[in-house]
Parts: sequence; C-alpha cells; structure tokens
Amino acid sequence: MTETRHDVVAIGNAIVDIIGRCDDAFLGKHGLAKGSMALVDTPAMQKLYGDMGPAVEISGGSAANTMVGIASLGGKAGFIGKVADDELGRIFCHDIGAAGVTYATPRAKNSLPTARCLILVTPDGERTMNTFLGVSPELNHGEVDARLIEGARITYLEGYLFDRAEAKAAFRQATAIARKAGRQTALTLSDGFCVGRHRAEFLSLIRDGVDILFANENEITALYETTSFDEAAKSAAKDTKLAVLTRSAKGSLILSGGESVSVAAAPVPTVVDTTGAGDLYAAGFLFGLSHGRPLDVCGHLGSLAAAEIISHVGARPETSLAKLAREKGLLS
Amino acid sequence: MTETRHDVVAIGNAIVDIIGRCDDAFLGKHGLAKGSMALVDTPAMQKLYGDMGPAVEISGGSAANTMVGIASLGGKAGFIGKVADDELGRIFCHDIGAAGVTYATPRAKNSLPTARCLILVTPDGERTMNTFLGVSPELNHGEVDARLIEGARITYLEGYLFDRAEAKAAFRQATAIARKAGRQTALTLSDGFCVGRHRAEFLSLIRDGVDILFANENEITALYETTSFDEAAKSAAKDTKLAVLTRSAKGSLILSGGESVSVAAAPVPTVVDTTGAGDLYAAGFLFGLSHGRPLDVCGHLGSLAAAEIISHVGARPETSLAKLAREKGLLS
Repeated sequence: MTETRHDVVAIGNAIVDIIGRCDDAFLGKHGLAKGSMALVDTPAMQKLYGDMGPAVEISGGSAANTMVGIASLGGKAGFIGKVADDELGRIFCHDIGAAGVTYATPRAKNSLPTARCLILVTPDGERTMNTFLGVSPELNHGEVDARLIEGARITYLEGYLFDRAEAKAAFRQATAIARKAGRQTALTLSDGFCVGRHRAEFLSLIRDGVDILFANENEITALYETTSFDEAAKSAAKDTKLAVLTRSAKGSLILSGGESVSVAAAPVPTVVDTTGAGDLYAAGFLFGLSHGRPLDVCGHLGSLAAAEIISHVGARPETSLAKLAREKGLLS
Repeated sequence: MTETRHDVVAIGNAIVDIIGRCDDAFLGKHGLAKGSMALVDTPAMQKLYGDMGPAVEISGGSAANTMVGIASLGGKAGFIGKVADDELGRIFCHDIGAAGVTYATPRAKNSLPTARCLILVTPDGERTMNTFLGVSPELNHGEVDARLIEGARITYLEGYLFDRAEAKAAFRQATAIARKAGRQTALTLSDGFCVGRHRAEFLSLIRDGVDILFANENEITALYETTSFDEAAKSAAKDTKLAVLTRSAKGSLILSGGESVSVAAAPVPTVVDTTGAGDLYAAGFLFGLSHGRPLDVCGHLGSLAAAEIISHVGARPETSLAKLAREKGLLS
C-alpha cells in the first residue's frame, strides 16, 4: 500500500458562500424550499442576489468544509475541486490552504466563474441554499490526483457532485482509485432533493461497496423512500458497513456490523446559522475514525464540531476545534 | 435651497474588507502597528494575504460603513466612491444598495481592481488594517454628484481620501458644493498615522470651516501634536463648531459652542472585532443630529451603534440598529 500521507481526502464542489439574512416570507415569495439546496442558473442567481439583503462572503463547499474541520482538529486533509482563476477562486484557494488543507487543483483559465452559493438564513438559524455551480463540475480526469487519493486512509465523496455528469465521472474515478489502493471510501448524501434526483445511482453505489455512509434524517428516508427513520436506518445498516445518521438537535445514530451507538447533540446557546452542520459533524467523525477512536468518541467529536459551526455565520470554524476537543476531554 | 433628499451623503473609499484572525506575534513579524491603517501596494498585499489565515469578506470602507449605519437606523444616506467592474466591486455595490443606501457611482471598466483591506484581528478584538486602494482614488470630477450633495443636510468626508491626490480633489470638490448649497460638512480624521501624513492640510480645512469634526483620542492628539487629550479637546473646541471626540471604552466627548457633553460607551459582553467602531459611532451621531436630537442623545445613538458593531466580525450591522435604538428608548 502507498505510504499514508493524509487521513482523509475529499472530492467535492469548490464554492464560495454568499450569506445573507431574510425572513420566511422572502423564501415563500421566491419559491424556495426552506432548508434545501437548489441549483440556479446565471439569470436566477443574479435575480436572487439582486433581491437579497447585504451579505458576507465565506469560503464553503460541503466536502471542503469537512476537510477544513479535520485540519482544525489537527488531522491531515486534502481536497480536490475546481475553481476559476477569478477573485472568488483566489479567495477559495487562499482560505482552504491557510486552513492547512492540501489543495492543488489548478484554477481554470477563461472558464465559467467560480461556483457560489447564495445562502439565506432565516431568524430560526435555518439555511436555504441556492447554488450556481459555474466552473465547479468541469473537473477533468487528469485533475483527480491519484497519488493524493492512494495516500489517504479515507476518500470522502460529496453527493452534490452527482448533479453534473462531468463531476460524476470524477467521483467514479476517485472511488475506483481508492478501492484499487485498498483504501476506504465514504459518501455523504448531501441533500434530500439531491437524493431524489439520484436515488437509484446512490443506492447502487452504496450496495456496491461504499464503506462509510453519511446522511441526515431527511436524506436517508428519501433514499429508502420511507417516512420512518427507524426503517431507513435498518436498511442503511444492511446496505453498508458503517452508516452515520445525523438528526439535528436529536443527535446522531451510528450503525456498524450489528452495533448501534446513539450520540447526543452538543449544546449550543444560540443557533445562529446551521450552514455546515452536517459537514462539520462529518469532519469530527472522520477525524476520530481515521485516528482509531471508538465510534461513540467519533460521534461526540462530530457533535462538538457541528455545535461550533452553527453558533456563528458561515461553515468554516472560527476557533480551533482541536482546542475545543481538548477542553471537552475528547482529545488529549 | 435644494430640496432635502438625504440626511447625510458621504464621499470615501469603496472597500471590501478581508478579515482574518492572527496573534500579536504575527503583527510583530510583519512590522504592523497594531490598531492602525497602513497602505499597501500590490506585492505587499499579496505577500500579507498569502501569509494570513483563512478570512471572510465583508463590504467595508469607513464612510460607507457610516452610511450603512445611518440607513440601519432608518435614516436616508447616500454614498459616493469608486469600485471596479470586478467581483469585489459587484459585491460592494450589492451590499451598500441592499442596505438601503443611495449609491450610483459608475463601476470603472478596465481599471485597477476594487480596493480591499486586509484586516487582522488579534485575540483582544483590536483590528490592524492594510489597505490596497486599487481603483478607489480614481473617482473623477464628473462622478462627484453635485445634486446628491446639494440635497443632503450633511456631507460627510473621510480623511483617508487625503492619501491620494486624485481623491483629495474629489474631497475638495464635494466640500465646495456643500458649502455653496448652504449645507453642513463633517470630516472624520480616520487614523492617527493618516493625520500625521496630512496634519497641516487637515488643520487648514478644519479652521476654514468644517462644521463637524469626528476624531478619536489618538487622532485628535496627533492633530494638535500633544500628548494631552484635554489640551487637544480645547484646541478642537476652538477650531470647529462641533467636535465629536471618541475614546473607545471611555465613551465620547462632544464639544459645541462652549458646551461640553460626556457620553458613556454602551456595554458590550465580548469585544469580538473593533473594526468599524468609529464609523458606526459617527453613524449614530449623524443620524441623531440630522433628526434634530439633542447632543447627548446623538452621542448615545453613536455608542449604541458602535457597541453593536464590535460585538461581531465586520463593520456592517448584523441587526437593525433602529430596533436596538427603540429597545433602548433612544428612538420612538
């Protein structure tokens, strides 16, 4: 086996978030499904941006957020994803590199612009996302760095990539490289609507041997077309070696080889912005797992990282997660 | 007199802030004077950006922040300042417009990029600023909208504009238009080092008839070349009709026609980032003044707006200042 250089390497959309506040009426007026992620084209993106209030820009992207979380916990993380050679692309590159994540995907020249996600945060802290993918799906075969994937304990794949054929090809390529190298693969289902769009393919991918599956309640019930979380959880436990199911304030359920571990959510004084809650839970969990920690500790690390991220605006940690984890006795 | 359409119109640098955290050692290593604003050229900006940690982007610019604060209090504000037709320029335009400020300066085509300020926030909440002015000083004569200035009760001028000859010309032009229209002018000294660079010109401008002067302790003592705040305050009271002197946690001192009003700072649970404290104090004060409120109420509105801004990252309000002011009984 190739020498291990990273704990986790991810492949995902490289996105800068543009985060503003709105009330529930604004979502209704614009026909937006609260809590979901919708894809928007250029005119829809410009219209929505024109209508929304003042915003802040913070680097994002689901799997990229997860890798930054792992780095913040002291882990070694890498990311593969495509930005353009424009201002938002340079911002994305700066932020992920400065966070300590290995990132070397070349910036596209004369391309569509860097992906951005218009995120509307309602007074309850819930986020509703509208993603303009731009250049992000144009990751080509040569840019999926085989050496990076072969040297990582776990390759983490973002379900959102399935929304574009080109990105899906990169996703499948990464999976094949990881398996051939005897490495583990992990998949996050990303979003309930995303699952709806790609249910059959996700199921075949999972049954075909994804080692670790991340999903929230909404996503896992959408995958198994049931309204019962328990039923969906049973199916997930049958289909995959390790299923990690998050349930917001109700905590998470970890299912592995007949074993079932329930983990409580970490307390948060005020939920400011839920953007990145799932991404950071995955960061804590994957950090723990790749460091050989027991499943309940992995879950608590996930809860801790998620609690930090929802206590402020944006999906990148504002404080050292390693320090927080040491304070809670989850890290020595 | 022209019909009054705005309470305050400002002319200043149009800047997007790039805000990251660092420790005191980082400032020392990079030779940065804590709490100050330094101008940087392209190579210095790129070097510092490369070295600093992950950041967030939030629209800024001292006078622009003040206008957004006035709009957040329910006032009518306008802004004149130059951005490029690039991504950061579009972000600046969106944010100031979405905040309710009248802003119509055309974006420059094929120009230097939009100005950005690399802001380093140390653990004590103090901010150290490094400004790359880019296209901002290229505001030309035709772009100082005479009609906008003539229709505003107060024209507010940013001292930072003095750092470039072109911008200084726009500044003088705006002053002349306001005076000819029988309107009031206000000046903020912006920064102690900025005062050091332009002391004689600032003094002549003030003695020549600026109606309202804003300065903090550092700036006013630099202007009058004294270490004594009381001495500097006495000189300011002699030189201008209305001097508004801020002293961080020690509150503010308002001097007008022999009258002297002391106002306490508003309490803040945790100082997160002092960026924009002076800008937002000026917003509260100018809103009160242009609405005919007594000087002590103007000062308390300033303290309230400053307290909101230093309780989070960035120099644009995160909550409605009008709502906060109503809760405190400062606005009905």
